[in-house]
Formats: sequence, structure tokens, C-alpha cells
Amino acid sequence: MAPHSDAYWEERFSGRARQRIQSSTIRELLKLTRQPGIISFSGGLPAPELFPVEALAAASERILRDKPSEALQYGPTEGYPELRECIAAQQGVEPEEVLIVSGSQQGLDLLGKVFIHPGDQVLVEAPTYMGALQAFNPYEPEYLSVQLGDTGLEMDVLEAALQTRPKFMYALPTFQNPSGWLLDLAQRQQLVELAARYEVPLIEDDAYAALYFNGKPLPTLFELDRARGSNNVIRLSTFSKTLTPGLRVAWVIAPKVVIRKLVQAKQGTDLHTPSFNQMLVYEVAQGGLGPQIERIRAKYQRNRDLMHAALSAHMPVSVRWNRPEGGMFLWLRLPEGMSATELFKRSIEQKVAFVPGLPFHANGGGENTLRLSFSQPTETQIQEGIARLGQAVESLLGMVSS
Amino acid sequence: MAPHSDAYWEERFSGRARQRIQSSTIRELLKLTRQPGIISFSGGLPAPELFPVEALAAASERILRDKPSEALQYGPTEGYPELRECIAAQQGVEPEEVLIVSGSQQGLDLLGKVFIHPGDQVLVEAPTYMGALQAFNPYEPEYLSVQLGDTGLEMDVLEAALQTRPKFMYALPTFQNPSGWLLDLAQRQQLVELAARYEVPLIEDDAYAALYFNGKPLPTLFELDRARGSNNVIRLSTFSKTLTPGLRVAWVIAPKVVIRKLVQAKQGTDLHTPSFNQMLVYEVAQGGLGPQIERIRAKYQRNRDLMHAALSAHMPVSVRWNRPEGGMFLWLRLPEGMSATELFKRSIEQKVAFVPGLPFHANGGGENTLRLSFSQPTETQIQEGIARLGQAVESLLGMVSS
Repeated sequence: MAPHSDAYWEERFSGRARQRIQSSTIRELLKLTRQPGIISFSGGLPAPELFPVEALAAASERILRDKPSEALQYGPTEGYPELRECIAAQQGVEPEEVLIVSGSQQGLDLLGKVFIHPGDQVLVEAPTYMGALQAFNPYEPEYLSVQLGDTGLEMDVLEAALQTRPKFMYALPTFQNPSGWLLDLAQRQQLVELAARYEVPLIEDDAYAALYFNGKPLPTLFELDRARGSNNVIRLSTFSKTLTPGLRVAWVIAPKVVIRKLVQAKQGTDLHTPSFNQMLVYEVAQGGLGPQIERIRAKYQRNRDLMHAALSAHMPVSVRWNRPEGGMFLWLRLPEGMSATELFKRSIEQKVAFVPGLPFHANGGGENTLRLSFSQPTETQIQEGIARLGQAVESLLGMVSS
Repeated sequence: MAPHSDAYWEERFSGRARQRIQSSTIRELLKLTRQPGIISFSGGLPAPELFPVEALAAASERILRDKPSEALQYGPTEGYPELRECIAAQQGVEPEEVLIVSGSQQGLDLLGKVFIHPGDQVLVEAPTYMGALQAFNPYEPEYLSVQLGDTGLEMDVLEAALQTRPKFMYALPTFQNPSGWLLDLAQRQQLVELAARYEVPLIEDDAYAALYFNGKPLPTLFELDRARGSNNVIRLSTFSKTLTPGLRVAWVIAPKVVIRKLVQAKQGTDLHTPSFNQMLVYEVAQGGLGPQIERIRAKYQRNRDLMHAALSAHMPVSVRWNRPEGGMFLWLRLPEGMSATELFKRSIEQKVAFVPGLPFHANGGGENTLRLSFSQPTETQIQEGIARLGQAVESLLGMVSS
């Protein structure tokens, strides 16, 4: 065989690469959303007009004037010390319990590397964050899943799953990507208690924790766990939704023994997160992000209202959706038997995009669900896009029932 | 067992994390080099006074003024298109053969993920780059190694190893980290021929390719392989040694089928390399880095000369070292039986640091070797540091022979 054929290379790929690192059908479909003129509710993109560009430009100027060597030289794997300390102080932990990572996605990859042995059971919500499945898959876990529905987690299923002692449970309690679901206080407490009782670590992915539209934030799983005197939760969060995703700066909070192992893994993975980016984030975030976050909340809440109203106006009665109290996503349920992937094909012809729910399900299911992102579109796009989507549903419904 | 003990977490680590992700003794030793007053020849750090700070500051201002949304929003996993095209043009390949990565270290991690199945044989040089072993280890390879000595690669050992069909060979032909060795044209050609004959892919890590002090650069393994009509080499290179390491921007060149798989793996690993960093590098590098690289070469060559002279003045005759024609490192061989790790302990008391050679050897050996970095120290530090190192060797030699 000539050393230049595709087969030559493909037969040298690892088992994990062949079986567990693949382009999903959905990712391929989503490439269609890059066409010009598409109204996109698909990407989980923050609204770029809210990026604090001037503050970042001023910070960049200061950093390159005052600390160019530190910003541009190799830095410590653990993270830029000032940023680590700042996050530790804000989160009420010690700096040694914090690791700065290149986006939460890297935190998930490192956790997969450090915890998942091939064949390990990992417990996830259904639906769950597709990117977490992509991060974990190369480490070859099996998945258990517990339904996240209109009343939250199915607690009896959850307990039965925890009793089988999976390696860990991965949960998104706050305005979950994809469903926008907020786990209530009672369920948070139950989840933390059960996980501790059955000695199953919890990984809490909390990217949207700052984006409550109203009212006081609920305590995090991490806080509830520490409050009961245990140390069973690893928490991920990020500057991607409050500042900017393009700098790729996020963090993991975990027991020191876990942070030490993650640091060793990160050293072999990328040496460290870019120092300049961490310094930029530190400069802009150190005084608190209050006004910045208020602007984001106000816009996303308004968009949520617009989308909710448009759905009420344009969707057939057999379609249901939620009204998230924060975050960037709304979850829509088509009538049973209707395929969101089929709807996607129809809706993309009408130049409207969303993400079908299937790939957010580790063990299948959710064919009739879909995710709508309300963070980025304009008011006109929401009204026009939802109207077209309603027509696409009507037309598919006509076909299904005919 | 309480869920807050270290043992609780440790027993949940994956096999790879327990056995193949560990802090090396050397990394622990190197922490000692952070003490104030240490003259360090240990870190592979570029000289920070040569970072093009003003050009980067100007680029940052332009980017945040003209393209803030693109710089700060999520971007494509493949890389910032303009940078990808720029690298492709400079390297004579198609953009689809280029992937932008977060430092070469990430390229190595992704290659490990995509190619190494547990138990696979990977062929490396002895010595080889320690960071590559750290990147590959979590994927649980076994190593074959071929000595890189005063006459280059041991060609008969190399051929015998290639005949066993390892998964790939990892080579650093140009001013290798750690040894500073430059593989000559004849050996490059032989290596490329043998690898193609035995159908063993080559991974060429070429971070120092721009840092020839004199004369015309040799053709790369990648170029030699393409010239013979095959497509058997994956090549890594980086902006870390020519521009700045702190932005973490590097690239992989590979057949398109490999790039596609690496892109899928990278998506689950960190979504993408920060857009802002790629745009900064593009802005500064697009016109070519000629004058910037000339400054680096001039300084490193001068430092190499200073270190070579200082070694000649201060080292016992039983110590040998090379005189690299480029790069950042010089390799020193103590008399047989003398331990570079012992020397390190003695030398750190004299406030001089280097890196012992042992951890650069995948299968052990090299106890009497060490790496000296000449890129960063000042003239005074080189003269004073090498004098002290000479005394430390003399004193250890006295002990050994007494």
C-alpha cells in the first residue's frame, strides 16, 4: 500500500480515534447554517456587541507596556497567579483548588483523561452538553443517563443509577446547555446528598451561573456539598459567557489532590493557557463584572421574552417549550413521532437554523426535541425566524398527520 | 471512606492517570531553579527582550478596533483562515493540510490521541523531547529508541526498529531539544527512505527550524518525503521560538485525512485556539519574520560562542559537549559513571541550574548527560554560571575518583 493513500493513514488511527472521535451528523448539518442570509438560533454564541472591547483594548495596552515579558513568555501550568487568586477569592476556595484552563472544554478533556478508564460508567443528564460527550468519548466510557424533564431530574432513576457506582456524574444544574433547565434547590440538595451517600463524585459544569435574569442565584452543587462538610464536587466555570469566549479562559475548582493531577495532565496537553489572555481577563474582571453582566442579562432576558412571545404566536398547540429564567437557550418539544432532524432540513430551506436535540442524548432519544439559542439574534430575526420555523413545523405536521 | 480524603479521589483516577501521568523527579528538582539569584541554563525559554512587543501592541490595537467580534467570538476549530492560508503558502501546502494548534505541545497530544492505542510501539530518539513523552504517555504506548550520538542516528538500529513496524517514529532533526543535534542531509534522506520503505509514518517536530546560525537550512523530512512522491511525514512547527511562546500558536502539517481527524479530536479538546492570538500572530508574521529572526539568531549564536568558550575554560578534559549550529541548547556529557542528577544537587547549591539528561530518555540511560540552554542568560551569567558549574563538576569528580 502506498504511503500516501487515505487508507494508509486510517488503518493507523487508534481504536478510540476510529470509534469515538467522529464528526457528528449534526456538525455536518450545522455547516449549512454558515450560508449567507440564514437566521441562526443554532450556535451557542454570546452577543458580540456586549464584548467589553474598549476595556480589553486598554488592558492589552497596559499589559504590553508594563509586563510584556510575563505576558509573552512561557508561564506556569497552574495559571497566572493573580487570576488564580482572584477566582479563588471570589469562589471562596484556596488558590491551590483552582486550575486555569483553555476554555471549559479543556477542563472536560482533562477530567476525562484523569478519571475515565475505558469501559467506565459515566452518568449524565438526558439531554446533556454535546461538547462534554465529545470530550469524554475518546476515553471510551459507557454512559448511564437520567432524564431531565418538566419536573427536573427523575430522582428514582437517579438514585438507582448512583447505586451502581458510576465513575462520576456530570451535571449542568444552571440554565443547562441545551435545555435552559434550572435545577431547583430541593433537587440540588437531593443530588448532592445522594452523590455523597453513594460516593459518586459530581462534576458541576456551571458556565451560565452568572446569567440569572431575576432573583437570587441558587447555591451551586459545589457550595451545597462543602456546606455539608464533604468535598465531592468538581466545578467548572468560565469567562466565555460573561466576558468573551474567544480568549479561551475558564477554570476548574476541585480538591487539591485532583488539581495536582490535572496540572500534570495539562502540562502534557498544552503546557499552559496563554499568559497574555489570562492577564487580559484578570485586568478586566478583577474589579468584578457587575455592570458587564447586567447588560448581558438585560439583553438575553429581552430576547427570551421576544422568542417566547413569537413561539406563542406562531407554533401549533401541539408544540411545547420552556421559559428559562436565565442563560442562552430554550428547549422545544415537537409532537411525539416528529423528527427535529427532518424539521431542520425543511427549516434550513426557509433559511432558519437550530440544533436538533438528538446529539445531546448520550444513549439516544430526544428525536422530537430541539435547542433554540436566543442570545445572539436581533429582534427582527427572532420574529421572522420563529414565524418561518412555525410554518416549517405546520408543514411537517401536515405531512405527518396526512 | 469519607468523600473528602485524598485516597477517595486517587482510587477513582484512571489507570493512565495513575501510571502514566505523573510529576517527574526532574520537574520537582526544577522547582528549585525558581529561587532568586539562580543562574538558570535549565528552561527552554526564548530571550524575552527579543519579543516584538511594539509590533504586537500595534496589532492588538488594530484588531480590537477593526475586527473585535471575530477576535473575541468562538472561531473555527481548524484555525483562523488567514493564518492557515499564510502558513500553507509559506510551507508550500494546501490550507486543508494545516491545523492551527495551541502550541506544538497540543499537536503532540492530539497526535497521541489519534494514533496511539495502548501498547502500541512508538519509536523515538535517545535523547528525545521530554514534553513529547509527557504528551504520548497518557495514551499508553511502549517506546523503542534509537541512539542519537556524535555521528547522528545509529542507522542499523534505526532500520531494525523500523522493521518491527512501530506505529510511528517521532524525530527532531533540527537542533533537537534537548541535544542541539542537527541531522545531516544524508541521514535525513536515509531516514525518510527507510520510513517509507517500512511504511512507518514520521512525525517531524521542527520547532527550531528557523534558527540556523549560518548557511542554508537543510531540507526538512517533510520536504524530502514529498520530493520522493510520498506522503509519509507529519510536521509540527511553531511561532514560540520566532515570535513568542506566550500566545501558544503553532501548527501541524499533515495529509488531509489526518488533519480532518485531528480537527475532530481538537474540537473535543478545546474547541479552538484563541482567535485573538491567531490574529495577533498573523498580523505580525504575514510579511515574513526575517529581521526578527535575524536578531534572535545573532543573539543565540553569540551566546553559544560565549558558552562554548566558557566551557573550554572551565570544564575538566573528561567532559565533552557539542557546538550546535543553531537552536537554543547544548548537550554535555560527563565522564561515564558520573550522575548529572547528583551534579544538579551540587550545582544548585552554587546557584546554577541545568536539566539532567535522564528524563529525555524514554527507556532510561543518559544519566551522565545534561542540557544547557544558552538562549536566555546574559554574558555575565554565562561566564559566572559555567565557572561555577565547572567547579561543581571538579568537586564531584574528586569524590568519584577518591
